[in-house]
Amino acid sequence: MAAARYDVLGIGNAIVDVIARAEEDFLLRQGMTKGTMALIDEARAEAIYDAMGPAVETSGGSAANTIVGLASLGGRGAFIGKVKDDLLGRAFTHDIRSAGVVFATPPASDGPSTGRCYVLVTPDGERTMNTYLGAAQDLHPADIDPQMIADSAITYLEGYLWDPKHAKEAFVKAAKIAHEAGRKVALSLSDAFCVDRWRDEFLQLMRSRTVDLIFANEAELHSLYQTADFDTAVASLRKDIAVAVVTRSAKGCLVIGPDGDEAVPAFPVARVVDTTGAGDLFAAGFLCGLARGADHRTCGRLGALAAGEVIQHLGARPETSLNALARENGLLD
Amino acid sequence: MAAARYDVLGIGNAIVDVIARAEEDFLLRQGMTKGTMALIDEARAEAIYDAMGPAVETSGGSAANTIVGLASLGGRGAFIGKVKDDLLGRAFTHDIRSAGVVFATPPASDGPSTGRCYVLVTPDGERTMNTYLGAAQDLHPADIDPQMIADSAITYLEGYLWDPKHAKEAFVKAAKIAHEAGRKVALSLSDAFCVDRWRDEFLQLMRSRTVDLIFANEAELHSLYQTADFDTAVASLRKDIAVAVVTRSAKGCLVIGPDGDEAVPAFPVARVVDTTGAGDLFAAGFLCGLARGADHRTCGRLGALAAGEVIQHLGARPETSLNALARENGLLD
Repeated sequence: MAAARYDVLGIGNAIVDVIARAEEDFLLRQGMTKGTMALIDEARAEAIYDAMGPAVETSGGSAANTIVGLASLGGRGAFIGKVKDDLLGRAFTHDIRSAGVVFATPPASDGPSTGRCYVLVTPDGERTMNTYLGAAQDLHPADIDPQMIADSAITYLEGYLWDPKHAKEAFVKAAKIAHEAGRKVALSLSDAFCVDRWRDEFLQLMRSRTVDLIFANEAELHSLYQTADFDTAVASLRKDIAVAVVTRSAKGCLVIGPDGDEAVPAFPVARVVDTTGAGDLFAAGFLCGLARGADHRTCGRLGALAAGEVIQHLGARPETSLNALARENGLLD
Repeated sequence: MAAARYDVLGIGNAIVDVIARAEEDFLLRQGMTKGTMALIDEARAEAIYDAMGPAVETSGGSAANTIVGLASLGGRGAFIGKVKDDLLGRAFTHDIRSAGVVFATPPASDGPSTGRCYVLVTPDGERTMNTYLGAAQDLHPADIDPQMIADSAITYLEGYLWDPKHAKEAFVKAAKIAHEAGRKVALSLSDAFCVDRWRDEFLQLMRSRTVDLIFANEAELHSLYQTADFDTAVASLRKDIAVAVVTRSAKGCLVIGPDGDEAVPAFPVARVVDTTGAGDLFAAGFLCGLARGADHRTCGRLGALAAGEVIQHLGARPETSLNALARENGLLD
C-alpha cells in the first residue's frame, strides 16, 4: 500500500452557514427543536431568514468543517462536495482552499443555489440548525474521484449525506474504493434526527463493515439504539463496530476500541459562545491523530482540544492555528 | 416643521464586508496601506480574494453601519444605497432590515454584483480595506426619496459617496431637500485618501453650508488641511463649519461647536479585536444623541460607547444591544 497523499478526505454537504443570535422564544415560535438540525425547503428557508435577526455568513458543512480543522492542525486534507457557481459557492470554495484543503469538485452551473444552514445561537451557546441543501442535493457518484479516495489514509463521511438523493450512492462508492485500496472509512452519525431517519441503513453500514469507525454524540447514540440508557447503548455499539467515539459535551468522550476503552476529559474553556462545529472539530482532532498513528487517548485529546477552540467563538471553523494550540499542549511534535 | 419620522437617514455605499485575519507582511506583499480604504476593480478584487485567508461575510458599508448602530441604540433609522438582486445583496437587505432600519432602495437587476469590501484585520486589531463598489456604483439621484429625506431629523452622508459616478448628485439633491425641510445634514469624511481625492469638493460642501456637521478622524483632518499639526487643522476647521467632531482613537474625541469645545474620553475596552466600524459607530452614537436633543458632551459619550462595543469583536455592526449598554452607563433613559 502506497503512502497516503492525504491524511483525511471528507465527503459532505457543501454548506454556507448563516449565523444569527436568537432568544429561546424565537425557537419556540418557529417550532424548532433546540440543538438539532432540521432539513428545510426553499420556502421555509425564506420564512426563517425573514424572521431571524442580522446574520453573518461563514463557510460550514459538517465534514468540510472537519477537514478545515484537520488542515489547521497541520494534516493534509481533501474535500468532495457540491456548491453552485454563485457568490456563496465561490465563498465556500475560497474559504476551504485558502485553509489549505484540496477541493476540486466542479460546481453546478444551474439548478438550486449553494446550500445554506440557518444557525440560531441561543444565549447559552447552543446552536439550532435549519438546512436548505440547495446545490448539495446534486452530489452524484460521478463526483467521487477514485484516485483521491485511494490516496487518502481515511475517508470520512458525514451521516447527513444520507439525506440528498444520490449522495448515499456516492458514499458507498467511496467506501468501496477506500477499502479496496486498503484505507479506512469513518462515519459521523451527524444528528439524532438524521439517525432517526436512517437508523437501519446506518446500522447496516456498521454491521457490513462498510465503515470502520463511527463518531456519535450521546443523543445520536441513544437514537441509534432507541434507548435512554447510556450503558445499554454502548454495549450494543461494541457489538456493531470495531472502533467508536462517543462525544459527551462537557463530560469529554469515550473511545471504544478492540484494545479497551479510553475516557478522555473535555478541554477546559473559559466561556462557551457557540457550540456550532464542536462535533466536527472533535472529529478533526481525532482523525488527525489517527492518520498519524497516535493512540486513542491522544486522538481523543486532540479532538477535545480542537472542539474546545471552536466553541469559544461564533462559527464552526477554527480562528486560531490548531497546530500551534496542539503543540502548546504537548499533543503534536 | 413636522416632527421627524426618522432620527437619521443614511445614504451610502451598500457593501458586504469580506473579513479575514492577516499578518502585517500580507499587507506589505499586497502593497496595501494599513488602516486605509483603497478602491479596487473587479480583477484586483479577485486577486486579493485569491490571496487572502478564509473569510467571514457580514453586511457593512460605512453609513449603513452607522444607521444599524443608531437602530441598536433605539433610534429610528432609514438607509438609501444600492445593491444588486443577488445572494449578497439579499444578505445586505436582510441584515439592515432585521436590525430595524427602513431600507427601500430598489436593487439593481443587472450590472455588477453587490459591492464588497475585503477587510484585512492584522493582529493589532487595525483594519485595512479594499473596496470593489460593484452595484453601489449605480446609486443615482432617482434613488433619493424626497419624502424620506424631509421626514428625517438628520440626513447623514458618507464621504465615500464621492467615489461612485452619480452618487454625488444624489448627495447634493438630498442635502438640498433636507435643508428645504428645515432638517440637518451631516457628512463623514470617511478616509484620508478619500479626502485626498475630493479635498476641494469637501471643503466647498462645508463652506457653502451644504453640510452642517462633519465627522473626521485625525488622519482625515490632516489630509483635509494638508497639515501634520493638529491645532492648525482644528483652527482651520472652526472657520469652515459650525459643528465638527474629530475622533482620535484611544484619545477620545473633540467636539467643536459654536458654544465651545468638548473633549470626551474614549470608552474603556478590554481588548481591541477589530477596529472596523469604529468611526461608523461613533457617528451612530453621536447622531442618536443629537437627534434627541442631547448636549454635545452626551453625544460624544454615546459615540464613544458605541465605538467601544464594535471594536471588541470582528465586524462593523453591534453584537449586543447598544440601547441596553447606553442605559447601563446612564446615557439613555
